[in-house]
Amino acid sequence: MGLVVQKYGGSSVADAEGIKRVAKRIVDAKKNGHQVVVVVSAMGDTTDELIDLAGQVSPIPSGREFDMLLTAGERISMALLAMAIKNLGHEAQSFTGSQAGVITDSVHNKARIIDVTPGRIRTALDEGNIAIVAGFQGVSQDKKDITTLGRGGSDTTAVALAAALDAEVCEIYTDVDGVFTADPRVVKKAKKIDWISFEDMLELAASGSKVLLHRCVEYARRYNIPIHVRSSFSGLQGTWVSNEPTGDSKVEQAIISGVAHDTSEAKITVVGVPDKPGEAAAIFRAVADAEINIDMIVQNVSAASTGLTDISFTLPKAEGRKAIDALEKAKSAIGFDSLRYDDQIGKISLVGAGMKTNPGVTADFFRALSDAGVNIELISTSEIRISVVTRADDVNEAVRAVHTAFGLDSDSDEAVVYGGTGR
Amino acid sequence: MGLVVQKYGGSSVADAEGIKRVAKRIVDAKKNGHQVVVVVSAMGDTTDELIDLAGQVSPIPSGREFDMLLTAGERISMALLAMAIKNLGHEAQSFTGSQAGVITDSVHNKARIIDVTPGRIRTALDEGNIAIVAGFQGVSQDKKDITTLGRGGSDTTAVALAAALDAEVCEIYTDVDGVFTADPRVVKKAKKIDWISFEDMLELAASGSKVLLHRCVEYARRYNIPIHVRSSFSGLQGTWVSNEPTGDSKVEQAIISGVAHDTSEAKITVVGVPDKPGEAAAIFRAVADAEINIDMIVQNVSAASTGLTDISFTLPKAEGRKAIDALEKAKSAIGFDSLRYDDQIGKISLVGAGMKTNPGVTADFFRALSDAGVNIELISTSEIRISVVTRADDVNEAVRAVHTAFGLDSDSDEAVVYGGTGR
Repeated sequence: MGLVVQKYGGSSVADAEGIKRVAKRIVDAKKNGHQVVVVVSAMGDTTDELIDLAGQVSPIPSGREFDMLLTAGERISMALLAMAIKNLGHEAQSFTGSQAGVITDSVHNKARIIDVTPGRIRTALDEGNIAIVAGFQGVSQDKKDITTLGRGGSDTTAVALAAALDAEVCEIYTDVDGVFTADPRVVKKAKKIDWISFEDMLELAASGSKVLLHRCVEYARRYNIPIHVRSSFSGLQGTWVSNEPTGDSKVEQAIISGVAHDTSEAKITVVGVPDKPGEAAAIFRAVADAEINIDMIVQNVSAASTGLTDISFTLPKAEGRKAIDALEKAKSAIGFDSLRYDDQIGKISLVGAGMKTNPGVTADFFRALSDAGVNIELISTSEIRISVVTRADDVNEAVRAVHTAFGLDSDSDEAVVYGGTGR
Repeated sequence: MGLVVQKYGGSSVADAEGIKRVAKRIVDAKKNGHQVVVVVSAMGDTTDELIDLAGQVSPIPSGREFDMLLTAGERISMALLAMAIKNLGHEAQSFTGSQAGVITDSVHNKARIIDVTPGRIRTALDEGNIAIVAGFQGVSQDKKDITTLGRGGSDTTAVALAAALDAEVCEIYTDVDGVFTADPRVVKKAKKIDWISFEDMLELAASGSKVLLHRCVEYARRYNIPIHVRSSFSGLQGTWVSNEPTGDSKVEQAIISGVAHDTSEAKITVVGVPDKPGEAAAIFRAVADAEINIDMIVQNVSAASTGLTDISFTLPKAEGRKAIDALEKAKSAIGFDSLRYDDQIGKISLVGAGMKTNPGVTADFFRALSDAGVNIELISTSEIRISVVTRADDVNEAVRAVHTAFGLDSDSDEAVVYGGTGR
C-alpha cells in the first residue's frame, strides 16, 4: 500500500455536505493503508464570485493581486476539508501551494510549475497526517509571489505532487464517471473508457474533451504517473490513463478511443495572399507576436490566373478580435486583399492509436460524415487523430454519426475491428 | 513627510464601494508625500461567514486549520484593495502576514506577535509601492504555520508594523469619529476626545471601551507609536493616543478622560469560605488553572460569629460555566458552602490621570451614582481609574449620570475643574 494523491474538484466540495462526503472517502483510503495526499479546488462557485468582486473594484485586475485574490478560494476549501477529516478522528493538515513546495515561474494567472519540493508534505505524512494541498496555486521562484496555474490547474498540481512524491496513482475525482468515447451530453450512447493511453488522452484533450486538461496529461506522461479519473459521487472504477493498462484495468487498447468535438474556435481566412515564399510566415508571425495560439491551418491551391491564394486558420473565439487587429495592422506589409471571420464553426476529431496501422479509418470517417450530410471545410491529421471543421450546427449530428459508425455506441455488439494489430 | 501606517476595519471595506472609497483615501496620503503601509481586515461579515462554514463541517474546529480558514478573509480584502489602488494609477502590492514578516508564537486563534521582520514591505515601499498587509494574521516562528491574533488583531498588526517600520503615526480607521467620553449609543451628549494619554486609553480599553483593544494600546505605548483613531467615512480629525499631545492635537490633558461601561461580565460569589490564610489562594488557583481571566475581586468582612466569609469576583460571562465547574470540582479541597452565579451585572468606570492629584473625584463619583439611585455592589480602583459593579439594568442611567456630573456632556460649559494641577 503506497502513497496516493487524490484531487477533488470544486463541484465535489461545493458545500459543507460535499466536504463531509469527500472527507469520508479520503479517510477510507487512509484506512485501506495508503498514505494520502489530497489536492482540492475552491468550493463550487467561489472562484467565479471572487472574479466578480475583482471586476467591481477594477476593470483590469492586476496579475499579482488577482492571483492573491483567487488563492483565497482553495485556502477556504482545504482548511474546511482538514477540519472535516479531523472530525472523523484522523489527523490532517492543510498546506497552501507555497507551503507544499509548488514552485512556479512568474507568469501570473497562468504560471507553469518548474519544481516541486514537498518537504513539509513528506513530514506531515510521516507523522501520520493526511495532507491537504491547495490546488491551482504556487509560489514564484524569483519573487516569492503567489501565482496561479490557470483554470484546471488543480489537476496539474495533483499530478505534479504525485510525481514529486513518487505516488502509485493520481486519482482525479470529478462529477462524471470517467472519460467517455464522446461527450455524453451529445451522444447518449457514449461509453465510459476503462483505460486509455497517455497519447490518445492527449489528443482527446487537445481536441475538446474537457475531462482532463492537456497540460495535466502531458505532465503525467512525462513522469509516468497513472491517472485514475473517477466520480466523487459514485465510487465506481473510472478511467485509467497510463502508458500500459494497470491495476483493475487490464484491457486491450481500442483501435479508436473516442470522438471529441469543440465549438470554442473560430476561423479566419486571409483572402488574396500573393503566392510567393514568405507570405505565410509573415501572416503567422503577426499572429504569434500578438500571443495568439492557432490550431489548424489550410492553404488553398493557388489560382494560376491571379497568382493569389487564400490561407485559413482556426483559433480560440476569445482571441478572434486580437488576431483581426494584428493582421489589419500588418496588412500593407503582408499584402493581402481582405479578412473573413467566421465563428459559426465546429471541430470533430476521431482519436485512436489504431489509426497508425489501419489506413481504412480515415476513409470510414469521411464516409460517416458524408452519409450524415455533413460538409467538411478544413481537415487536419496527426498520426493518431483526424480532425475536420464543419458548420457549428452540424457538430452534434456529426459526432453521433461518427460514434455509431465506429461501433462505439454502448448498445453496439463490439467496436469495429480492422485487420491491423490494434495493439 | 514620513511613513504612515493606516488600518481599515471590516466595516470600512464591507463591499466594492467601500474598498474604492478606502483606496482613494490611501492614494491621498500617498499624494501628500507619505510612504503608506495599509493594514486591512476581512470584508464586513466574511469572518463570521467562515466561522459559520467551519461549524457546518466540524463542531470543534481545530486551531491550526481554523486559522488557515479565517486568514482567507484578509487575503480577499487586501488583494481587492491593491487592485482598486492600481486602478487609480498608483502602484500597490499586497502581503500576507507571513510575507510581511509578522512572526508569532504558536498559540493558534490567539497568537502573540514576537517579532516583525518587514523586509519585503520595506523593499515594496522603496520601489514606490503602497504596501497592503493582511491584518490579524502571522506565521509561527517554530512550525511556520499560519496563525491569527484573535479578534481585534488587525489593530495590533498595524501598531506592530508601525513600530517595526518606525512610522510617524498609526492611523486606525473605523466607523466612528474617534474615542468618546462615553459610548455615544448610551450617552447622546458624549464628546469626541481630541487627545488621550496611553495610560488613560489603556484603562478605558480595560474597562469596556471597544474602540481600541488593550493589547494594541499596550504595544503602541511600549514602542511609543502615536495612534490616530478616526473615521474612514468623514475624514475628520479623530482622537490621538500618545505619550504627549502631538500634531494637531495640542490640547491639555483632561482631569477625567471618560466613562466606560461593560456588561459582558458576570459575578461569582463563593459563599461560606473559612476565614483563614490560603483560602483565597486556593480559590483563585482553581480558577487560574482553568485558564480563566478574572477582573475584580472583593472579600467580605468575616462574620466573627461563624469565622466564615464570602469572596466575590467578576469574569467574562463566556467563561462562567467553566469557572463554576472548576470550583465545584475543588469544593471539598477548598471547603466552602456554595456558589452564586449572577450574570445580570454591569461595570461603570471613570478614567482620568487627574484622579492622582484630585482626591475629590472619588467622592463626586459616588455622589453622582447615589443621586441617580444606583446601588453599588463591588468597587475597584487603580491610580487613574475607579470602577463599580451595579445591576445591569442600572448601567446606562449610571453612565449618563456620571458623564453629566463630571461636566463631560457636549453642551456643558466646561469640564469640572479641581484644585489640582490637572497636568
